[in-house]
Amino acid sequence: MLDILIYNGTVITMEGKGVGVIENGAVGIKENLIEVVGDSDEVAKAYKAHRYIDAASKVVMPGLIDAHMHTGIAILRGLSQDTDNWMEKGLWPFVKELTLEDHITGSLVNIIEAVKAGTTTCCDYDSHMGEIVKNHVAVGTRARVCETVNEMPDEMGNRTVGDLYPLDPVIGQKKLQANIELLEDWHEKENGRITCLLGPQGPDMVSAELLLEIKRLAEQYDTKIHMHVAQGDREINQMVKRYGKRSIPYLEEIGCLNERLLAVHLTEATREETQRLAKSGASMILCSGSIGIIDGIVPPAADFIELSDKLALGSDQAPGNNCNNMFNEMKFTAILNKCKAKDPRVFPSWKVLRMATIDSARAIGLENEVGSLKKGKKADVIIVDFNNPSLVPIIQEPIRNIVPNLVYSAKGSEVETVIIDGRVVVDNKILLTVDEKEAVKAAQMAAKNLGKRAIDAVVGLETPIANMMAEGYL
Amino acid sequence: MLDILIYNGTVITMEGKGVGVIENGAVGIKENLIEVVGDSDEVAKAYKAHRYIDAASKVVMPGLIDAHMHTGIAILRGLSQDTDNWMEKGLWPFVKELTLEDHITGSLVNIIEAVKAGTTTCCDYDSHMGEIVKNHVAVGTRARVCETVNEMPDEMGNRTVGDLYPLDPVIGQKKLQANIELLEDWHEKENGRITCLLGPQGPDMVSAELLLEIKRLAEQYDTKIHMHVAQGDREINQMVKRYGKRSIPYLEEIGCLNERLLAVHLTEATREETQRLAKSGASMILCSGSIGIIDGIVPPAADFIELSDKLALGSDQAPGNNCNNMFNEMKFTAILNKCKAKDPRVFPSWKVLRMATIDSARAIGLENEVGSLKKGKKADVIIVDFNNPSLVPIIQEPIRNIVPNLVYSAKGSEVETVIIDGRVVVDNKILLTVDEKEAVKAAQMAAKNLGKRAIDAVVGLETPIANMMAEGYL
Repeated sequence: MLDILIYNGTVITMEGKGVGVIENGAVGIKENLIEVVGDSDEVAKAYKAHRYIDAASKVVMPGLIDAHMHTGIAILRGLSQDTDNWMEKGLWPFVKELTLEDHITGSLVNIIEAVKAGTTTCCDYDSHMGEIVKNHVAVGTRARVCETVNEMPDEMGNRTVGDLYPLDPVIGQKKLQANIELLEDWHEKENGRITCLLGPQGPDMVSAELLLEIKRLAEQYDTKIHMHVAQGDREINQMVKRYGKRSIPYLEEIGCLNERLLAVHLTEATREETQRLAKSGASMILCSGSIGIIDGIVPPAADFIELSDKLALGSDQAPGNNCNNMFNEMKFTAILNKCKAKDPRVFPSWKVLRMATIDSARAIGLENEVGSLKKGKKADVIIVDFNNPSLVPIIQEPIRNIVPNLVYSAKGSEVETVIIDGRVVVDNKILLTVDEKEAVKAAQMAAKNLGKRAIDAVVGLETPIANMMAEGYL
Repeated sequence: MLDILIYNGTVITMEGKGVGVIENGAVGIKENLIEVVGDSDEVAKAYKAHRYIDAASKVVMPGLIDAHMHTGIAILRGLSQDTDNWMEKGLWPFVKELTLEDHITGSLVNIIEAVKAGTTTCCDYDSHMGEIVKNHVAVGTRARVCETVNEMPDEMGNRTVGDLYPLDPVIGQKKLQANIELLEDWHEKENGRITCLLGPQGPDMVSAELLLEIKRLAEQYDTKIHMHVAQGDREINQMVKRYGKRSIPYLEEIGCLNERLLAVHLTEATREETQRLAKSGASMILCSGSIGIIDGIVPPAADFIELSDKLALGSDQAPGNNCNNMFNEMKFTAILNKCKAKDPRVFPSWKVLRMATIDSARAIGLENEVGSLKKGKKADVIIVDFNNPSLVPIIQEPIRNIVPNLVYSAKGSEVETVIIDGRVVVDNKILLTVDEKEAVKAAQMAAKNLGKRAIDAVVGLETPIANMMAEGYL
């Protein structure tokens, strides 16, 4: 007896070399696992279920994996766009005004946004993760989380943009301790739905000593290191000033370039550095929308995938992207890379869909659990309604147009059902696990107060967005 | 007595140099016109209305303008992606299989997609426009339409890609006649909601003689010419082979570079050519999503807007983009241009929103009717629900984050109400004017038959997408 039998759908398994379509397919779920995937008529003959879902004119596929998010700063959405030096001039003036409550309240809305758009696994990277992780538990998302670890004081004094950051080992140890507590408290909890990584913020923001301690801990806990690498000329400048080396050669030298590393962004990595990273077995996480807005850069994913399929996509954060929606990431990844290569054939839709599912699962080290529909894997399944005008029509022959339309037309709002670990989390577009309206209301309230507190932070700021506001453009 | 009073909203008027926000604003509509725009409390005191719409936590703004669409080929959505030479190798093998019914049926779904995502004005460019325009009448969209005019035979013989197209003046006259009939039958009909343009497909697809005849007709009807210009190296190769000149110098020489011209794409236009066009008073229509997918190119909009604000955005067509959604176009326009310039400050959100509203209205010649909220303009108004997790929170100070989030986060599905010419066309996300489910069903049926007919068209095709299908990737 199955718990859920989804039948009559176009099933995209993501097994095999392409997308693995079963035209009239079924997926059977028992407890938190996929029990059967196959032809709809055959499966319907062989199995009974407690609940049946008719997926005619719908697409059944693995839940999407968002490999890099900062849900804790969601409440800053839209406050730091169209600026140069985004982190120092755009984000930081506001981040320092955030309360713990702001982090938690914003995070919940952000996770709701993601899951309703079909994201079932969130690699969430933030400070206060010991609290934020409870939002993932409440919503029911699969989460692979870490705590932001850096050695940077909250108040960095009267620095000029570009000055070497002061690194403080006391702060580093305190933040690392929070990451260790996260591991101790949450790793492999909630039926294995929550797993923990180590989160050094970047090679420029922790000392070599701290990074080596983190490396040792990753081995001890047999987990991975989730780190921003070569994130903008800002980081490279810090590295060259401090160590006389760029980020990737430095990481290689201290023994951190290996399969345990999830390297995020690589905005400033050269082709040679990117390929050195790919060869090492490390993964790349590509945040196309975010880096496009923040830096005006298309990271070197094309160089990476020549040598490795451990490439995952991430939506990054609301004050940068400004959405956390993997359909958005897929379309941007395809088009930005086509424009970078000046070749519309590169990054075809089937490959990009793999980057949000099976390649991503491999990149983050969950390839045995999620990323494709296969007997024995965790039941993370979404159903996308193709009766939506933006996805009409479905054509199966002579060209199957479903995956091009998923990647190039779907917006996330067509996702009808989201099942995570066998549990129906979104049903007919309604989130079942937490009260969405209450979450939105709380975030609106928190933002109102934040706005008031941030007035002082912005006074005298000569940032492009503050100028646009002052000059009446916004 | 107003017909509709929208109150309590954040009103984005698009008047003035920026976006013209009224924080607690109201918009009053009487018949098909905007009667009042102002402070919500003041307007509520001064006016009564038949219908009140509370827009608390919502944004009230001008309907979006899609300046370039081909709704008639919507049924081919997703059949020609990830290919080089998109038009000849991607689109044409399928276009020739379309029946008149396919054009009409696909078009209706496409218009529904657009209007539900907040598009109120559609510049629709297609063959069979005399029939397609009836869909705009039925849905209730404002439409500025033209008929595709070219001199190209349906069967172009055993040509090799790149051969000079055969031009046939008999065919040209027949198609021009259809455009003239469209003008005679529909120009300024439906309370002025439908207006007609002339639609030579491109300078490479009509002879100089026919183009001069079209120019004369545009003056006679006092209307504009909607034409693809410098659309890919395909067109430039044709122009150089036939006339020894590139498109824009050619158009200037024969006297077609002036205020009557809406020049679409400019994919292959140089900076010098683009600026020559801008100086002439002609408009540029930028289709960021479509040209990114089709060509891997970011057109020279940055060069154009240095000299002119007559730049409009267009979603182009479903087999290219693959969606017709102006929120998609706004985000792609901003990010692709930031990446092209390698500068995140260019194409800021407020400017991009202008490109989908007031700048667009100016570009297509409807600046006195639409594109901003102002007493006396046509009542084309949309309401966007900011209670959506992807648009939360609203912050008004110290930085107003609404427009960045409209441009960088909204997906179109947050549009709650669409009013066109004073008529509520979409109410609480439900389309009131035509039966959406029936339209979707009809398009699905038509596509099934198209797929069967197209099998022969695809046999032996050595296109990238046909190869992906044959090799089991799709």
